[in-house]
Amino acid sequence: MTRTLSRPSRIGWQLPPFYCPINESLIHPKAAELEQRAIAWIDHFGLYPNETERAWGLATHSADFSCRIIPYGAVEPLLLFIEWNYWANAVDDWHDSDSVGTRTSGIVDHATRLIRSLEAPGSALLDPGPLTTALNDLVTRTRAMLTPLQLRRFTEGTRDWLLGATWQTANAERGTMPTLNDFAAMRMSVNGTRFTLTWCDIANDIHVPSDVLYSAPVQALTDAAGFIVACDNDLFSYNKEDHQEPWEQNLLNVVAEYHGCSPKQALPASVAIRDRAMTLFLRLSEQLDQDACPELRRYLISLGHYVSGCIEWQNVAPRYASPRNRHELPVPGATYGITWRDAPSDASTEPLPIPAIAWWWEQLER
Amino acid sequence: MTRTLSRPSRIGWQLPPFYCPINESLIHPKAAELEQRAIAWIDHFGLYPNETERAWGLATHSADFSCRIIPYGAVEPLLLFIEWNYWANAVDDWHDSDSVGTRTSGIVDHATRLIRSLEAPGSALLDPGPLTTALNDLVTRTRAMLTPLQLRRFTEGTRDWLLGATWQTANAERGTMPTLNDFAAMRMSVNGTRFTLTWCDIANDIHVPSDVLYSAPVQALTDAAGFIVACDNDLFSYNKEDHQEPWEQNLLNVVAEYHGCSPKQALPASVAIRDRAMTLFLRLSEQLDQDACPELRRYLISLGHYVSGCIEWQNVAPRYASPRNRHELPVPGATYGITWRDAPSDASTEPLPIPAIAWWWEQLER
Repeated sequence: MTRTLSRPSRIGWQLPPFYCPINESLIHPKAAELEQRAIAWIDHFGLYPNETERAWGLATHSADFSCRIIPYGAVEPLLLFIEWNYWANAVDDWHDSDSVGTRTSGIVDHATRLIRSLEAPGSALLDPGPLTTALNDLVTRTRAMLTPLQLRRFTEGTRDWLLGATWQTANAERGTMPTLNDFAAMRMSVNGTRFTLTWCDIANDIHVPSDVLYSAPVQALTDAAGFIVACDNDLFSYNKEDHQEPWEQNLLNVVAEYHGCSPKQALPASVAIRDRAMTLFLRLSEQLDQDACPELRRYLISLGHYVSGCIEWQNVAPRYASPRNRHELPVPGATYGITWRDAPSDASTEPLPIPAIAWWWEQLER
Repeated sequence: MTRTLSRPSRIGWQLPPFYCPINESLIHPKAAELEQRAIAWIDHFGLYPNETERAWGLATHSADFSCRIIPYGAVEPLLLFIEWNYWANAVDDWHDSDSVGTRTSGIVDHATRLIRSLEAPGSALLDPGPLTTALNDLVTRTRAMLTPLQLRRFTEGTRDWLLGATWQTANAERGTMPTLNDFAAMRMSVNGTRFTLTWCDIANDIHVPSDVLYSAPVQALTDAAGFIVACDNDLFSYNKEDHQEPWEQNLLNVVAEYHGCSPKQALPASVAIRDRAMTLFLRLSEQLDQDACPELRRYLISLGHYVSGCIEWQNVAPRYASPRNRHELPVPGATYGITWRDAPSDASTEPLPIPAIAWWWEQLER
């Protein structure tokens, strides 16, 4: 039986309205079937050590996440992506548990082993156990399904993600809250943006020519999408992580430190940063769309699904709306009940005064 | 005045004969001019804090290294690569000094900042100083010279390199000597193989289609080249690093621990591993050459230059032949005076019993 643990929220439970003028609510028509298949896979490999962990694992709604950001994707790659997400969440929880410790050296070692296990089939770099057995299944199927270039993007995206996560661990170990500039530089990596977007392209069968995909404007747009998603994630997950010491490295705590105020007081300034990134995203996407090849046009649409789908997903995922630091078990039907706004909370179209991302605005044609 | 510090060598100064039936000794015709231009760049930016550091920096022979592995490359990208190598060696020495400490958390933070500085122009993530000013120059020129895909390969290669180096630091912090399997899995990353090979392709104007470059056989061959180069580097640099505590994570120490013997006793088994990798490299390269497109054919030749050029370079680089733990200043003309052998020390063509690299042999057609 679920018991609510009493813990006041520093920022409250009503999040500021979200500015996201991109899509109506979209979800893949096979979402329910895909979730069932993924759960069967999870249970076949015994991904979780007990029913409580299983409940919290399923409360990530990884299937819903994947099906909202890839509403028109092919079923089999989408299933594989869903399973990767459940698996990654299970590893993430294991990282946060006592078994590996939170020391940077241990996390680096594990991250390096993971990545090479993707690159070097049969490499036997990880301790045996359900997570490793499941990983071997994922790797085998992924290597069989992806083209060589897709596989490389996948492993590089994973490396970027894990190095970002390791950077957070290093900050925590040293008791460092990142500056706003450092945070903005790294947040997309910490969030696994490239990992996720590679799978969006795979499931959507999008093949943007590399010299287009890696051009500065398209990379700025991609980074901006990842940054917006990560900022939104920081809003949805603030209460979930407010028990941590040292304080979680998220948008609100970073901005609070920057302005010398409380996280609640930092909300307007934080949302303003996120909304100005959204304005940049919309303008740059529209600009790129004008001369886009068909593959790039599809990529631009997919980035929109990524941004809007993440909001819709987190709004109704029990992982966020009934967080574990306050609930013994996830609450079915829990939701943040978010609201929307039609205009950005800060209407400025000027570059944000954050050097690590100011170059995004330089990609706009005057 | 150079004074020789007395320190016996655990393995002696006569290295076992090298098996490398690839090339005669090659070097770029503009090598001397390129070295002069690179040194002028170094001195312009004041890369080294004093004359002693400058002498040891130049003793890396980074120009000679680059000109031997890219004997036919275009001059301007080759110059930029040379300067990157001098810069990277200077950073490496700074990592090893007291200023940053050898804790994994500090190295992770610095590595992450470096990589994002390549990706996000003007990001202001690094402390001001000569190394940062020089880096900004390198980044600006690199971004202007490379295609978007080349730039991405460069940043991904750097991330792979730095994560590998971080993994070594994590092992040292925990007092862990890697197993032979772990060592073989990661050694190519630690050595910066992908960083270097990206520049070989740039300077040689080689553009292997991505789905060919990232195919399993070509990746196996690429990994094998990096592994051979790294093993050879471990032979040449053993004496240079034998003062370190804990012991350096190199081929000889890993094999010594594996067999429970001394590093000197581990020499034959170590060279046997390296030579069997060389046999695999030669067979797989020949196999791939049979159906290769022109770009792949040029890539195969470049890999050969990489393997053979590294041996020639290290044989005469004072960094190795008059190491700093025994000499106050590098000794001009110092050399290991290596010898060669026409056949591998271990003639077996079977896969090495090392899971992380055994898949290389699976790429051979029977």
